[in-house]
Amino acid sequence: MIDFLQVKKEDAVYVQGDPLKTMITEIFTKLGVSDEDSAIVADILVASDLRGVDSHGVCYNIKRNYLPGITQGKINPRPNEQLLTETTATALMDGDGGLGHASAFRGMNIAIKKAGETGVGIVSIKNSTHCGMLGYYPLMATKQDMIGIAMTAGGPPTVMPTFGTEPMLSTSPLSIGAPAKNHPAFLLDMATSIAAGGKFQIANLLKTDIPEGWGLDENLEPTTDGNIGMTARKWLPLGGASRLMGGHKGFGLGLAVDILCGVLSGEGYLKMLNPDRLTHFLMAIDISAIRPVEEFKSMMDDMIDEFHNCPKEEGQPRIYIAGEPEWEAYLERSKNGIPIHREVHDWLVELAREMNVKNII
Amino acid sequence: MIDFLQVKKEDAVYVQGDPLKTMITEIFTKLGVSDEDSAIVADILVASDLRGVDSHGVCYNIKRNYLPGITQGKINPRPNEQLLTETTATALMDGDGGLGHASAFRGMNIAIKKAGETGVGIVSIKNSTHCGMLGYYPLMATKQDMIGIAMTAGGPPTVMPTFGTEPMLSTSPLSIGAPAKNHPAFLLDMATSIAAGGKFQIANLLKTDIPEGWGLDENLEPTTDGNIGMTARKWLPLGGASRLMGGHKGFGLGLAVDILCGVLSGEGYLKMLNPDRLTHFLMAIDISAIRPVEEFKSMMDDMIDEFHNCPKEEGQPRIYIAGEPEWEAYLERSKNGIPIHREVHDWLVELAREMNVKNII
Repeated sequence: MIDFLQVKKEDAVYVQGDPLKTMITEIFTKLGVSDEDSAIVADILVASDLRGVDSHGVCYNIKRNYLPGITQGKINPRPNEQLLTETTATALMDGDGGLGHASAFRGMNIAIKKAGETGVGIVSIKNSTHCGMLGYYPLMATKQDMIGIAMTAGGPPTVMPTFGTEPMLSTSPLSIGAPAKNHPAFLLDMATSIAAGGKFQIANLLKTDIPEGWGLDENLEPTTDGNIGMTARKWLPLGGASRLMGGHKGFGLGLAVDILCGVLSGEGYLKMLNPDRLTHFLMAIDISAIRPVEEFKSMMDDMIDEFHNCPKEEGQPRIYIAGEPEWEAYLERSKNGIPIHREVHDWLVELAREMNVKNII
Repeated sequence: MIDFLQVKKEDAVYVQGDPLKTMITEIFTKLGVSDEDSAIVADILVASDLRGVDSHGVCYNIKRNYLPGITQGKINPRPNEQLLTETTATALMDGDGGLGHASAFRGMNIAIKKAGETGVGIVSIKNSTHCGMLGYYPLMATKQDMIGIAMTAGGPPTVMPTFGTEPMLSTSPLSIGAPAKNHPAFLLDMATSIAAGGKFQIANLLKTDIPEGWGLDENLEPTTDGNIGMTARKWLPLGGASRLMGGHKGFGLGLAVDILCGVLSGEGYLKMLNPDRLTHFLMAIDISAIRPVEEFKSMMDDMIDEFHNCPKEEGQPRIYIAGEPEWEAYLERSKNGIPIHREVHDWLVELAREMNVKNII
């Protein structure tokens, strides 16, 4: 995570992952979510915090998204999830408006199972909700010596197409993971906009400026105001506003994600889409179907070593492979705890008290 | 294609696609390539020219790449292509150093066949060579009412990782296509660098400047000199050199492409890779396995209409969906001919004379 979006040390309360997970599980259970789904959601939320992906962790999302989502009826705590169609290598799932984490988790497990049988599996999910840190799902595949791919789309549009002046896309993230041998798995987990929505949210919350170029204000001028960035919601695709600098590639990538999620699943697109619904695309490739897994993983290690040995810009101590910063945050936070903003910690403790959930953080 | 990289009208000879294809087929046959492969390569090269993707067309590539490749023994004109492994939904192909177009063409056909049987098909190709305009292969899938994905990697490194000072990646392009009903198919076909290698080549050839930001000079300073851009080969990933602007996303995407091509196929990566060899990843998803094709295609049309109706920046008459500019070039050039630079035309006519191929352009 970018330094200026980190919770400052003096504002932080350090919490261990396991008790946090226990509390979050119980909170979801009290909200009417099944034991199984509560445990899945808690695991994914806490995994985000442990991996330093604060924008998708416990702190910001329960209060803002999932709690009001359930209490206002936008998220179905007891969904009747169904497979609408199925072939040897594919499935279409209706999430029935349940917590996206649980549907995407089960969807990826189906994709992994199908990949084990045919070499590759794809699960398309409609009628779902926010599924949290997208990188979690490809990591489910890498743990099974598979390549994992996940995408998600939907929600109110925030990103502008090249040459457009109104937001038409979601930040439409995609994530690709591949296992290595001694190195942590490669894990790309990126919004197809320059900055993820969560980064705007956090900048807004921390009352900090944002870098010029992430988004425009209501008058289509570049803004560095974190508040305006969040409220104007005129964000730029990867590559920015200029076609010459490849902005149309970020736009095209976002659109590809929206097609593979919203259109393939049949949920819909943009204005035709229920703003409370999201869609997912989950895929696993069984490496052993193509070639020996150990050889693949050794080659991943060699490749990563080669990048680490690349000469570096002055002042830059290293080249980061996608997934490394998060893996290192995971090691550090598993030991020293997750820094949660004091105000959020207070809110969580108070919520637990109200819900009669034992406070163990 | 960007305006300043177009062949100027006064330098152009206009050539029709069909006679050009006939001549190119015959030239490859005379070079020792089989009739089948010659026809495939000619079709893909001329399709690139017709679609306005001049960087991958007849003009620039035969002289620069394929002709010397074959005569210097870097491309095998009579490869013994083999499937090394195969499952219901996947295959690994050894291209035996043949023309990449032919291997990728057959690879995509296998992926499409497998998708028809299981819902999705993936073909990984090692020991191949340059396969031309990548978008050709997803379009093979869209014509069968499937979603197509293609990636390719390899060749001498030109793109720098975030914080690195030496090129470590190829431009590692990826292409995703999806059929629509009345609109042309969506077709993203992008290098994961800001600018594709072919754009640097053409700028160099046309002796024109390049936009600041595409690449650096030997001293790591931004350059606008098309010649230096080509010779220094320090190109920037999509998002540029700055992590804040998402440069690490372009780098990560490029790496993901290299993993899915070079590492998955087992050909290798970067310095461990034979610089004359490229690798491909081809995939097809049968839409009808997930949901009715006609509904999917209608929804694509609705989505595209919605984008066309987005309010536009001043001076911008329209929003382009990926694949539209190339489709419109195709319609225009199918009628009015392909503009080939006079010097290239002369060279081609002379080549035909030398090879005893009838000149019909």
